[in-house]
Amino acid sequence: MQSVERLVLLGTGLISGSFALALKRARLVKRVAGVGRSLENLERAVELGVIDEASTDAAQAVIGADLVLLGTPVGQMGKLMQQIGPNLSANCIVTDGGSTKQDVCALFREYLPQQLSTCVPGHPIAGSDLSGASAAQFGLYEGRRVVLTPLAEGAAPAVERVRELWQACGAIVYEMDAAQHDGIFSAVSHTPHLLSFAYMNSVLDRYNAEQCLDFAASGFRDFTRIAGSHPDMWRDIALANREAILQDLRSNVTQMTQLIELVESGDGVALTQYIQRASQARIEWGKPKKGSL
Amino acid sequence: MQSVERLVLLGTGLISGSFALALKRARLVKRVAGVGRSLENLERAVELGVIDEASTDAAQAVIGADLVLLGTPVGQMGKLMQQIGPNLSANCIVTDGGSTKQDVCALFREYLPQQLSTCVPGHPIAGSDLSGASAAQFGLYEGRRVVLTPLAEGAAPAVERVRELWQACGAIVYEMDAAQHDGIFSAVSHTPHLLSFAYMNSVLDRYNAEQCLDFAASGFRDFTRIAGSHPDMWRDIALANREAILQDLRSNVTQMTQLIELVESGDGVALTQYIQRASQARIEWGKPKKGSL
Repeated sequence: MQSVERLVLLGTGLISGSFALALKRARLVKRVAGVGRSLENLERAVELGVIDEASTDAAQAVIGADLVLLGTPVGQMGKLMQQIGPNLSANCIVTDGGSTKQDVCALFREYLPQQLSTCVPGHPIAGSDLSGASAAQFGLYEGRRVVLTPLAEGAAPAVERVRELWQACGAIVYEMDAAQHDGIFSAVSHTPHLLSFAYMNSVLDRYNAEQCLDFAASGFRDFTRIAGSHPDMWRDIALANREAILQDLRSNVTQMTQLIELVESGDGVALTQYIQRASQARIEWGKPKKGSL
Repeated sequence: MQSVERLVLLGTGLISGSFALALKRARLVKRVAGVGRSLENLERAVELGVIDEASTDAAQAVIGADLVLLGTPVGQMGKLMQQIGPNLSANCIVTDGGSTKQDVCALFREYLPQQLSTCVPGHPIAGSDLSGASAAQFGLYEGRRVVLTPLAEGAAPAVERVRELWQACGAIVYEMDAAQHDGIFSAVSHTPHLLSFAYMNSVLDRYNAEQCLDFAASGFRDFTRIAGSHPDMWRDIALANREAILQDLRSNVTQMTQLIELVESGDGVALTQYIQRASQARIEWGKPKKGSL
């Protein structure tokens, strides 16, 4: 397989850094440039060998690149595309690691209209509550899934190139429509994050919040792990995938209203059935094959 | 410290079994009898050395006991108290491991009115989605918290005895009012369980539920771990702590309604603040001291 000559990471963090590390280990990249706003983070990335050179100037950095990975929160991607557009070589492939895809497709169309044949929207499913270059790790993508949502304007060879690079990182690559992607990830990722934020804030609103938190144990720990996620990233996701998320949040309010009625009514049989449905499905999901994700 | 002569577990599972194992290791119990409804589970408990003898007859088993631990879901405790009442010796201490305390206090008063001076309601904070005797483990209570909610009618020596036995299991023992206990645990344990059930059911209601579950990853895994919990146990908790839980569920609906308005309005600054509040508190909570629970 052909190596990448110059990979440019726009945003140097967990997702982009781990991609660079995996390609380096596979000897599939010659030089990695990392762009970011925090000099401290960039220095750390150089020290850790995640990137070979650091820059705060995206437009400058992409000169001569054959692969650009947008690894910032989605809210920053439009501006970055605007900056790099004039300096991209015609063959340079531009892909991203954003958690929402309809909006990224729209950004590509708006800001890189001349480049669309080599733009490949993507989403590596390897979330973490950690962030920054120091969170980048070898092997992050081993056995993980990456979803590509190719543009109608995209050229097949560009999509194939991105696919083979992710596969070289150990990932399993899927393709689907951007709207389908956003519906699925609203359901199983975005909405649970927002529910976890809302729950955490409801505890903080209590008059005895401190005492409650003092007695919180392992159930609380796991349920709220994702509430510790990065505010900017999740604001961007919430706004970018607004319609799907609103639908799911409303359906959760409906579910909770039903549950409140069940608890109020004291109907033990119906309450058991309600819990059993959730419990059985969760146990089934957790069985080896899928739980290993 | 004086050994327990005959410990009887009413319900032989994770909580009661791990208590028996800890006392055995500390050489603080001479004989352990396990009562249950499933012969298979009781046989397993004997094989594993959790109990020394098995019975399906609670009334018979408590004869000669100096300590009885009610380790069933709270919904079964009243009937068991009724059965054992006539056969309890006057000095026998009766304690429990139920997750709700106001209702257990009421059950003690209703079904064991002659025994109240030696009844000690308790709650070991060591939940798990596992259950049954085979889930019992040495060391489960090392560094864990146990909350006792002594009855006004209780005698201090009985409370002290239960305290020292839990401490011998490695636990840190707290005392508080039963209503205070139920408010705190509704907030940090019961309500998150119900939210996790409701969320899981909302995913199952989707037309593409299977595909969604197929792409669910680590955030989903942790957020829904407690949705796999035991339906009977959680039905009992939901009904036993109904008032506190309804209040918390309603306050979560209010939170979610606010969040829906924020997402709808597209107000990025307010949304960031909303997420930041939750995120900072969760990160703070997770720092070594408390996260180790």
